[in-house]
Amino acid sequence: MTETLTLYTAKICPYAHRVELALEEAKAKYTSYQIDLQNKPTWYAPKVNPASKVPAIAYGGPTAAPEDPSPQSVKIAESLVLLEFVADVYPHAHLLPTDPVARAKTRFFIEVVSSKFSPAWNAFFRGQAGGSVDAFLNALEEVQALLPSEGYAVGEYSTADIAITPFIARAFVALNNDIGGYPEGESKVVLSKLAEPRFARFTKYWSDLRSRPNFTATFDEAYVTDAYKKRFASLRAQK
Amino acid sequence: MTETLTLYTAKICPYAHRVELALEEAKAKYTSYQIDLQNKPTWYAPKVNPASKVPAIAYGGPTAAPEDPSPQSVKIAESLVLLEFVADVYPHAHLLPTDPVARAKTRFFIEVVSSKFSPAWNAFFRGQAGGSVDAFLNALEEVQALLPSEGYAVGEYSTADIAITPFIARAFVALNNDIGGYPEGESKVVLSKLAEPRFARFTKYWSDLRSRPNFTATFDEAYVTDAYKKRFASLRAQK
Ligand SMILES: [Ca+2]
Repeated sequence: MTETLTLYTAKICPYAHRVELALEEAKAKYTSYQIDLQNKPTWYAPKVNPASKVPAIAYGGPTAAPEDPSPQSVKIAESLVLLEFVADVYPHAHLLPTDPVARAKTRFFIEVVSSKFSPAWNAFFRGQAGGSVDAFLNALEEVQALLPSEGYAVGEYSTADIAITPFIARAFVALNNDIGGYPEGESKVVLSKLAEPRFARFTKYWSDLRSRPNFTATFDEAYVTDAYKKRFASLRAQK
Repeated sequence: MTETLTLYTAKICPYAHRVELALEEAKAKYTSYQIDLQNKPTWYAPKVNPASKVPAIAYGGPTAAPEDPSPQSVKIAESLVLLEFVADVYPHAHLLPTDPVARAKTRFFIEVVSSKFSPAWNAFFRGQAGGSVDAFLNALEEVQALLPSEGYAVGEYSTADIAITPFIARAFVALNNDIGGYPEGESKVVLSKLAEPRFARFTKYWSDLRSRPNFTATFDEAYVTDAYKKRFASLRAQK
């Protein structure tokens, strides 16, 4: 009998999306509760996550309303901690390989996403000093270079793929709608370069990631597009 | 029969020290090879780690000289990836708990070390704009708050303790010798505050960490002190 599990999440948030992808892939039974990040409920930090961020999970204990989780449930935060947790709780889902070397490759891919891909995208997206089209594409190429000739990041689908998927999805929302702090129209430059042979492997990888049922079940593109337009319109306006 | 394992390391480096602590705790059979970080061998990046950093492990394949690792060996880098790898390869060493919730707590502690403790120490140590005695002590207090009333980070010794140990050890080398970019003498202020009741739990924790055989076997305090004096003397001089 599995323990009760409530996921505190937000459709806009890529970190929370990671955990939704993992839970869906694991075919877990869980309760999903949306937190409005622009208007957080007052009970959220004291009862669920003192850092006041999503994602967070309340695990175990008696069934309880998400707004009033049981003190007996354990509260866990941090998306990468939660990916390992979901892999541990649902071993039959094979979210991580069983071989130590393959597991190390999975975690190394995630580290490259965290330390190279995400910062480069963020700097470009927010129009920061260190950001540029080329810096972002170089970082993407570094990720692409880790991919085997076919299949997922370490062959079989894993937390490595789950870690990057939400960020690619939101990058395309931004680029397809020219949302961000980068100069107007630079999105078209990026999209054009992404369509070139240099990124053919990435293009196939992204096609594979977004056609998986766990992605289509957890990504509300219309909602995220609208939320991005509202939330990030000022990034360019204030430059 | 376990696979061959060569660890590329450097006594000064806290990230490499993490992996040495794990391998010693696991009572692993391995070859340790020192890389001079100020004068790296030309074969290191192409043959072992393109990022040219330590730690790195060459795992599996036939026995080979560290300077000429076999192409059949797998090369793995990134200290936290390597801690999980050593835990996976030596499960009898219990470097990670078996319970998913306890494993999540272990990884959460490591995340707090990475995102709060290390940046705060680094900013103070290097005399950077965001660094200060209080910011460092507040970050340390955040780590201390996670500790149970006795024992290690998650009760039993784990990769959580291994992750932070090298950083605490080198912080004391810096503080005890007034090495760093912070104003001269500020080290005494920090040491004095660390001796207060506010940090009693941390003081006990550090005592427990440094008395373990894996620590005494892998920390050459005289060497690191001398190396820190040489390497970081200019931090204050250039202010
Ligand atoms: Ca699978």
